[in-house]
Amino acid sequence: MMWSRIIKNSITLGQTRIASSLVPGEPECPDIKTDLPGPESKKLRKELGAMQETGSVEVFGDYDKSIGNYFVDADGNIFLDAFCQISCVSVGYNHPELLKVFNDEHNMKCMINRPALAVFPGITWPKRIQNLLSQISPCLPNMTLMMCGTCSNENAFKNIFIAYQRKKRGENVDFSEEEKKTCVLNKPPGSPNLSILSFLNAFHGRTMASLATTHSKYIQKIDLPSLNWPIAHFPMYKYPLEENKRENDEEDQKCLAEVEDLIEQYDKCGVPVAGIIVEPIQSEGGNNEASPHFFQELQKTAKRHGAYLLLDEVQTGGGGTGRFWCHEYFDLETPPDLVTFSKKMQLGGYFHTLELTPKLPSRVFNTWMGDPGKVILLENIIRIIGEQNLLEVVQNTGKKLKCNLHDFEKEFCHLIDSVRGPGTFLAFNAKSVKIRDQIIRNMKCKGVMCGGCGIQGVRLRPALIFQEHHADIFLAKLREVLMEL
Amino acid sequence: MMWSRIIKNSITLGQTRIASSLVPGEPECPDIKTDLPGPESKKLRKELGAMQETGSVEVFGDYDKSIGNYFVDADGNIFLDAFCQISCVSVGYNHPELLKVFNDEHNMKCMINRPALAVFPGITWPKRIQNLLSQISPCLPNMTLMMCGTCSNENAFKNIFIAYQRKKRGENVDFSEEEKKTCVLNKPPGSPNLSILSFLNAFHGRTMASLATTHSKYIQKIDLPSLNWPIAHFPMYKYPLEENKRENDEEDQKCLAEVEDLIEQYDKCGVPVAGIIVEPIQSEGGNNEASPHFFQELQKTAKRHGAYLLLDEVQTGGGGTGRFWCHEYFDLETPPDLVTFSKKMQLGGYFHTLELTPKLPSRVFNTWMGDPGKVILLENIIRIIGEQNLLEVVQNTGKKLKCNLHDFEKEFCHLIDSVRGPGTFLAFNAKSVKIRDQIIRNMKCKGVMCGGCGIQGVRLRPALIFQEHHADIFLAKLREVLMEL
Repeated sequence: MMWSRIIKNSITLGQTRIASSLVPGEPECPDIKTDLPGPESKKLRKELGAMQETGSVEVFGDYDKSIGNYFVDADGNIFLDAFCQISCVSVGYNHPELLKVFNDEHNMKCMINRPALAVFPGITWPKRIQNLLSQISPCLPNMTLMMCGTCSNENAFKNIFIAYQRKKRGENVDFSEEEKKTCVLNKPPGSPNLSILSFLNAFHGRTMASLATTHSKYIQKIDLPSLNWPIAHFPMYKYPLEENKRENDEEDQKCLAEVEDLIEQYDKCGVPVAGIIVEPIQSEGGNNEASPHFFQELQKTAKRHGAYLLLDEVQTGGGGTGRFWCHEYFDLETPPDLVTFSKKMQLGGYFHTLELTPKLPSRVFNTWMGDPGKVILLENIIRIIGEQNLLEVVQNTGKKLKCNLHDFEKEFCHLIDSVRGPGTFLAFNAKSVKIRDQIIRNMKCKGVMCGGCGIQGVRLRPALIFQEHHADIFLAKLREVLMEL
Repeated sequence: MMWSRIIKNSITLGQTRIASSLVPGEPECPDIKTDLPGPESKKLRKELGAMQETGSVEVFGDYDKSIGNYFVDADGNIFLDAFCQISCVSVGYNHPELLKVFNDEHNMKCMINRPALAVFPGITWPKRIQNLLSQISPCLPNMTLMMCGTCSNENAFKNIFIAYQRKKRGENVDFSEEEKKTCVLNKPPGSPNLSILSFLNAFHGRTMASLATTHSKYIQKIDLPSLNWPIAHFPMYKYPLEENKRENDEEDQKCLAEVEDLIEQYDKCGVPVAGIIVEPIQSEGGNNEASPHFFQELQKTAKRHGAYLLLDEVQTGGGGTGRFWCHEYFDLETPPDLVTFSKKMQLGGYFHTLELTPKLPSRVFNTWMGDPGKVILLENIIRIIGEQNLLEVVQNTGKKLKCNLHDFEKEFCHLIDSVRGPGTFLAFNAKSVKIRDQIIRNMKCKGVMCGGCGIQGVRLRPALIFQEHHADIFLAKLREVLMEL
């Protein structure tokens, strides 16, 4: 199967080791000057706390000074950033090429005059969409743009429901008067009972429908009304994978059988499964991987039952796994029906098959339908990924990181295990929540940012310009932290 | 009650008539050179149609050439724009002050390095939030930022549910283990049965929960699963208002009684109403106004039942009504509990009371929580509104437009009626859907853009820089169109 041009480039070009930093002007190493948070961050947090909920804020960023892989905070502390704004920074802070983008007057005017894109798109818009599709589409012909990952999933569900009902109604059959009347009042048959099947520990966003498919942490869901939609177990593998093959294969089978069961069960009780949403790697929920075989079979199951398969690549997409789309690793027999994205892509959106495109206007619609300013940034990020061969950088850095993390899990087997993930999209587990929190905290105090995930996971989400010499610093600091625990 | 500083400015400064255009370089009048759509727009539409659903696109915009109130299309046709990207353009196309904003290096870096604002806000962020609150908050102390109107409403609902359950549970009572476990599986008691009451003909967005409160057109809702939430009638007034006072007052009473009934009914059947969402003027649904008395009583009803009142100012906010917030006209005894915004404000968000702020982090949360680049644009728009005294411009232009539209509805009483709205946030009805569509079409062919709303409404949504001489053009063209029908 043909994937995107970027991927091919990075495969055809040979391996070249790059010694200097891809973003000029980076510091040589982290530098922590104050307690964390420092006095300036503390002061700013107090100010902000009077106007917004700030429970998740610790340090404030100095985005004038942050550069490449280095995040500088309000107190001048310099961090090597392997978390990158929850996996959103693609080519590092203040990449010189991105800073130039809006020097172009046309680009600036595209950004300032944000149109209602589904009604009055600009004259360069078709070309922009065409370029995006030809460069990065996972073999899907249509693209719908949104603003964030959550609303990409919400709207992708709508495409699914619309296509599912069209199939049921018959291709050219009109809506009935009863359907037209009842839907305005939220009632069937106009608003039918349909569901999206999701997986335990999944994270797909936080508005009502996307949150109904999110099952990661209670704090994200408690007190919020939800939907009776089917939830299957996602494979939970034992590591190292090579030593637990039989058990992990059984885990796949068990989860696939449950999916099949749930589809039949929900169909019988009048809430048919119109679609299945799944992350290629459950990210927020613990960097939980499943095998290519699992995804191949899941796709077959979906097809067998007339349900559409949506791959949520909001966190996995954009290159961190060493491929532009993580599901390229799965060797699916056809592309998924829909692939949603956001984060590193700067805005939200999804690719989909023609079958998933509504035949009438104003069904999947909102005022803006994307943002030319963000698309222009994305275009340049894609160009930089190609020019700087960043997927190969990710693969090489990832190899080094993973190899060393495997050594660490042997050396510090009382502290960590289950090293996993492709590219630099890596994680490992700590032996307890407490140890996990200590590792993240102590890394931060040594000037390295990483994130938590799942119950006791530590996740790495560096930018694509995180090179082997950055990995060396990361690994040295992690070794120190593990030694000291 | 003290409202925003901008409002006070525009009230304290005397009336000054401005003869020349507020945005320099505007053409003197519309100029249509081709059939609509012209050949270039047709060609572009065909290109885009292969990649996206384009049923709502007619002409493509040339945003390099569009200026002030004038939209230029791909074929060089020049339109006086009284629709403004579905009410999103605040100070006109290519306002010279907005084009300068990102010449500032700090601003550019704020825009390029988009942070996860709820975790790593920038050092200038507290000051920016403080300025927004002090300049435009409708007397509400907290602000949560989002990306669009739909997700502002979705997330505002979450604040409502969280506060409602906290009140029920008791201020400092912990979640139960059962709540924690069940909510992850979408089940009560962790995911309780709660509802938001909305009104017929309302439009609050198009993701699941916001769409469940939208009841405007079937095409927006058909085939999409929804929620059993209460829906009340919104007052439908007879015009002219002065001649139908008794009947319209009765309409208010009937709708208020229905709200009361529905709250009691839903409470009894175990789906209590945690909040009420309402537009100050139903915009998409027909520019339907309700009286200050209606809103005052609605607020009292909400308070009496412990439901929070959310005013959706996504379309009405930002100055088009002649006040910065439309609900300033209602003289409510306290501010609403929440006020959502988007469109002219460049990004989404909402103001709210402290009671509506979650006490724990990660409950109302997403990756970006707004966008500094858009906030910087908004800051400058607010500055321009103040410096150019635009609320007064809106009031003066609106007065002229409305006065003349009233004359037209007498002169052309076989074609139009029910002129309504404050400021330039105006609408009138055509006698039939067909006549409405003809008016909009014929206006467009004469080079004036306006929009439809409701069943047979024509709505005006010009930018705040739409001056009296622009109104003259609009009125002259409308008169021609009505004469020719």
